[in-house]
Amino acid sequence: MTASATKAGPVHALVDRLRQGDTRALARAISLVENEAPEARALLSACFPHTGSALRIGVTGSPGAGKSTLVDRLARAFCEAGRAVGIIAVDPTSPFTGGAILGDRIRFQERSGELQERPGDPARSGGGSGFYARSMATRGSLGGLAQTTADAALVLEASGKEIILVETVGVGQDEIDIARLADVTLLVLVPGMGDDVQSLKAGVMEIADIYVINKSDRDGADRVEQEIRALQSLAPAQTTAWSPPIVRTIATTGDGTRSLVEAITSMDQWLRSGDHLAERRTRHWQLRLSTMLRTELMRRARRNGMADDQLHDHAVCVASGHQDPWQLIADLSNRLFEQES
Amino acid sequence: MTASATKAGPVHALVDRLRQGDTRALARAISLVENEAPEARALLSACFPHTGSALRIGVTGSPGAGKSTLVDRLARAFCEAGRAVGIIAVDPTSPFTGGAILGDRIRFQERSGELQERPGDPARSGGGSGFYARSMATRGSLGGLAQTTADAALVLEASGKEIILVETVGVGQDEIDIARLADVTLLVLVPGMGDDVQSLKAGVMEIADIYVINKSDRDGADRVEQEIRALQSLAPAQTTAWSPPIVRTIATTGDGTRSLVEAITSMDQWLRSGDHLAERRTRHWQLRLSTMLRTELMRRARRNGMADDQLHDHAVCVASGHQDPWQLIADLSNRLFEQES
Repeated sequence: MTASATKAGPVHALVDRLRQGDTRALARAISLVENEAPEARALLSACFPHTGSALRIGVTGSPGAGKSTLVDRLARAFCEAGRAVGIIAVDPTSPFTGGAILGDRIRFQERSGELQERPGDPARSGGGSGFYARSMATRGSLGGLAQTTADAALVLEASGKEIILVETVGVGQDEIDIARLADVTLLVLVPGMGDDVQSLKAGVMEIADIYVINKSDRDGADRVEQEIRALQSLAPAQTTAWSPPIVRTIATTGDGTRSLVEAITSMDQWLRSGDHLAERRTRHWQLRLSTMLRTELMRRARRNGMADDQLHDHAVCVASGHQDPWQLIADLSNRLFEQES
Repeated sequence: MTASATKAGPVHALVDRLRQGDTRALARAISLVENEAPEARALLSACFPHTGSALRIGVTGSPGAGKSTLVDRLARAFCEAGRAVGIIAVDPTSPFTGGAILGDRIRFQERSGELQERPGDPARSGGGSGFYARSMATRGSLGGLAQTTADAALVLEASGKEIILVETVGVGQDEIDIARLADVTLLVLVPGMGDDVQSLKAGVMEIADIYVINKSDRDGADRVEQEIRALQSLAPAQTTAWSPPIVRTIATTGDGTRSLVEAITSMDQWLRSGDHLAERRTRHWQLRLSTMLRTELMRRARRNGMADDQLHDHAVCVASGHQDPWQLIADLSNRLFEQES
């Protein structure tokens, strides 16, 4: 209680500063969230009342599909339209080496710097809070990448960003989890490259709210579109549901950016008509609350010496066959509930 | 307590039967584990004392790399050498449709039937408990695919299988998690096909104990081998660690199967010399215990109306901005510990 009261001061000061457009405060706040610092929860609680109106756009697709360039194009277009834009580029870390994909991060920081610091940039003259990009690595924590990304998006939104673009690196489970927490998900496909529509991991096609065929000047764009339409025709028709459009782009030249912005705007309008956005966000929060509860329970387990790295001695007994793991777990959880109540 | 005592009878009878080579009992036991039936934990506890000596081999790699054919070849080779073999083919389900990859399952069941029922098959004249193959789908449960697969492997081992082959469909996070629970992991690569070594998801290369270049009669096999060696040369040299060999195969003709069996046998011998196997399995159990504890805590949360699908009303309040999610989680977990203690 005392610790929390002491922390409230600095955390609220930080939130005040980031809400006034202080980029360093924003960067610091996202770092606290990313590093799962003790004050992160108080920080997020303080940000929460200032969120709910931004549009969160997830951009996913195979590596090499041109997502970064496309996100740049979208960011510039929204900035030019006077909207304040935040970008989170998610760098999944290897579970073994623990390192972020360094090249990407450096490239991204350059991109962010370029857009932020160029005098006369539309981002600065535009929507007040301007433009902010952040490359994000993550620890192998329980909540995982999707949670940390959603938390960072919340901080960005509290800082006044109206459009949050979340760019992922690949199309694995992490990316699906991240996409599930976006309001609008773009799935970026490219002709050729061996990533035919049918080779995509099960579940990836279903997350798309808008299909983007990037590098659409290449041979095979028609085939990709046909494959998408064939898959769509297999899906059960839902008259009340959003019907995902297909947009062709060439991110390197900017071709198709306007159509893509229009598609996003249409979806935004659809979401905000009726209960679509509320339903979608309720689903998001249901997933998130479940994960948050799990994280909280495991935090308490750790406090009682029962989490992850603390289970080594028990693991030795089980691996040698001297301890039944199911009995062990029953005993440990009983002990936890006795001690924490 | 009474419920558990009543269940002990049938569960122990089932384990007795599967240990006597009753294939239907084995199939039923794996289904109980796969479906997370209430008696699954008692069943696994009853199997546990009869496990620890089998070698668990994980086989992972991109779709189309020829893993199924390779697993068939390995299974036959081990059967011919008089070893009892179990196969688990993991079918990740789409998080959206919930369906297994049907074609694969059917194909696999045919394969299993063929090997099991053909008279005079080495599997039958060989190691006593013969051959058993199982395609496995999974629910989107907390423990996830890796846990269910490890549990099924444990049941197979209790039934007398000495070699357990676990075949995954792709190379995503699920597959990495599954590979982490194997004693020996084969990473199957193929020349061409756009899955160059560097395009593999971070973390995939690191899980390989043995690299297999399948379809090695194709152009580009040398290049794949060079790429693996280049990556290996970047890894920090660890004199005490296993140094992953590279084996070339043509699964369709059987070329290289003997070399692959030799590589697996070498690794098996290395694992069983010194503390290598004990260390590896301690690491596995540390991961598993952590997941099992999380699953148990969430089971108790569900019992108190706080898990996943039960959080809908709370999610509505959070999504509409009327409830701070972090405060909610603190309240819910306090209530849980009070009620469960």
